[in-house]
Amino acid sequence: MTDPVILPRVQASFDRQTMMQTFGAEMLAAAAGRCVIRAPILPTVRQQQGAGHAALAFGLGDSAAGYSALTLLTDEFEVMTVEMKINLLAPAVGEALEAAGEVVRAGRRITVVRAEVVAIDGHVRRTVALLQGTMIPVAAG
Amino acid sequence: MTDPVILPRVQASFDRQTMMQTFGAEMLAAAAGRCVIRAPILPTVRQQQGAGHAALAFGLGDSAAGYSALTLLTDEFEVMTVEMKINLLAPAVGEALEAAGEVVRAGRRITVVRAEVVAIDGHVRRTVALLQGTMIPVAAG
Amino acid sequence: MTDPVILPRVQASFDRQTMMQTFGAEMLAAAAGRCVIRAPILPTVRQQQGAGHAALAFGLGDSAAGYSALTLLTDEFEVMTVEMKINLLAPAVGEALEAAGEVVRAGRRITVVRAEVVAIDGHVRRTVALLQGTMIPVAAG
Amino acid sequence: MTDPVILPRVQASFDRQTMMQTFGAEMLAAAAGRCVIRAPILPTVRQQQGAGHAALAFGLGDSAAGYSALTLLTDEFEVMTVEMKINLLAPAVGEALEAAGEVVRAGRRITVVRAEVVAIDGHVRRTVALLQGTMIPVAAG
Repeated sequence: MTDPVILPRVQASFDRQTMMQTFGAEMLAAAAGRCVIRAPILPTVRQQQGAGHAALAFGLGDSAAGYSALTLLTDEFEVMTVEMKINLLAPAVGEALEAAGEVVRAGRRITVVRAEVVAIDGHVRRTVALLQGTMIPVAAG
Repeated sequence: MTDPVILPRVQASFDRQTMMQTFGAEMLAAAAGRCVIRAPILPTVRQQQGAGHAALAFGLGDSAAGYSALTLLTDEFEVMTVEMKINLLAPAVGEALEAAGEVVRAGRRITVVRAEVVAIDGHVRRTVALLQGTMIPVAAG
Repeated sequence: MTDPVILPRVQASFDRQTMMQTFGAEMLAAAAGRCVIRAPILPTVRQQQGAGHAALAFGLGDSAAGYSALTLLTDEFEVMTVEMKINLLAPAVGEALEAAGEVVRAGRRITVVRAEVVAIDGHVRRTVALLQGTMIPVAAG
Repeated sequence: MTDPVILPRVQASFDRQTMMQTFGAEMLAAAAGRCVIRAPILPTVRQQQGAGHAALAFGLGDSAAGYSALTLLTDEFEVMTVEMKINLLAPAVGEALEAAGEVVRAGRRITVVRAEVVAIDGHVRRTVALLQGTMIPVAAG
């Protein structure tokens, strides 16, 4: 589903997020209104029982949602998260988390987004978090 | 406001969260129904415009809220986040973020929590995020 | 998609909600993990600009989500809303609102639900609200 | 805490909300960034176990929050709810619900609000819901 024009454009912004580098995250795909981000569950991003921390699931889901919104904007814009709600469905256990974001409604002033975060554990994919929130465009750089 | 019995107990759990170490976070205080966590805005936790990433504000606020809930439970329990809503009020600019969590209502089955995250920039403290969510007790280790 | 055993069981609870009668709401369908509720946008449920009030969209979405959760429980239970997030996408303009609820994850202690609310305006159906939240079982009557 | 200039201005908008009339709601007070709304728990607004419906707590809390935002705007504007999160802390049992809204941060493009809803049962006041959300200004009339 990746778009050869859109992906490099939003990835340039993604690559400036040092948090994503800290998480070892990479952008797998981006197209109009959609974006997929993946990161390993590193030893450095765990909660107290050894699963991936809620901040990891949040960070990947929020970024996938935000870059979904950015795919629909021109180069003068970045987006910022106004608000985000996350429901955590299961512990983030496995090798990696993959977050798929999508635009639900792109408005002139705000964009409503969702994301689903799945844990990948061998051949099993399990949904661990669902996010729903609001993005706002801001002037780039 | 710190309690000499409660703080070491919840800090033992906090110290097992490698994500908090990655963020350079420390628990400043804990008492019945309250917890304060602080972390520098490291070069490694930024968003694309150089401010602290939303996942940092979320992670600190969620942890402060969760450990507030844990202060009210006995040693057999940990808590997990069921859901969390974050409103981001301003960019996380400054040296550090400080998250203050509090229990709004402790129930038998779930605990409702809030947290406020402030950015500390020299002598200025500015609220950058407000969180409201739900914690659930789970059996410890 | 309606189930001839499930629908009458959850409708008996629905019929005791006087708020749903005030809204003129009816349960259109119910099956395992799903429920659809519809109500006219009566002159008595408007906001200041004449569209359906946010409390109408919320009430129908929350009920559709809650009864979706109830379809998966036995007769000894009712469900209560722990928390609910609503994003309003467009004004609720038209003859009626229809809310479709679904269970995202049914757990032993809590159930995560979603709902979509559409406005029906002649032949046009437009999504006006998305809800995501948490239900908890409680002992019936 | 009421302001003799602000109250009549926001009340004029409130009085056009037929939903508030259906709920028997009245605006008790309004001042810069604050608003209080009260309604009886009528027989017509109950859930299946006889308590006030979640849509009542939501509707009063959302309106108190929204009119708090409106107090800070000039006459050319109305506000609409972008999104709202509600945590329900206890059943809405008693004679009346009272919702107190406040602006947390008034921005140029969006306003972040909170509300607390209490049930009044004889001499007892009990918090039954907490709301946190986002309002956006729209052109009036």
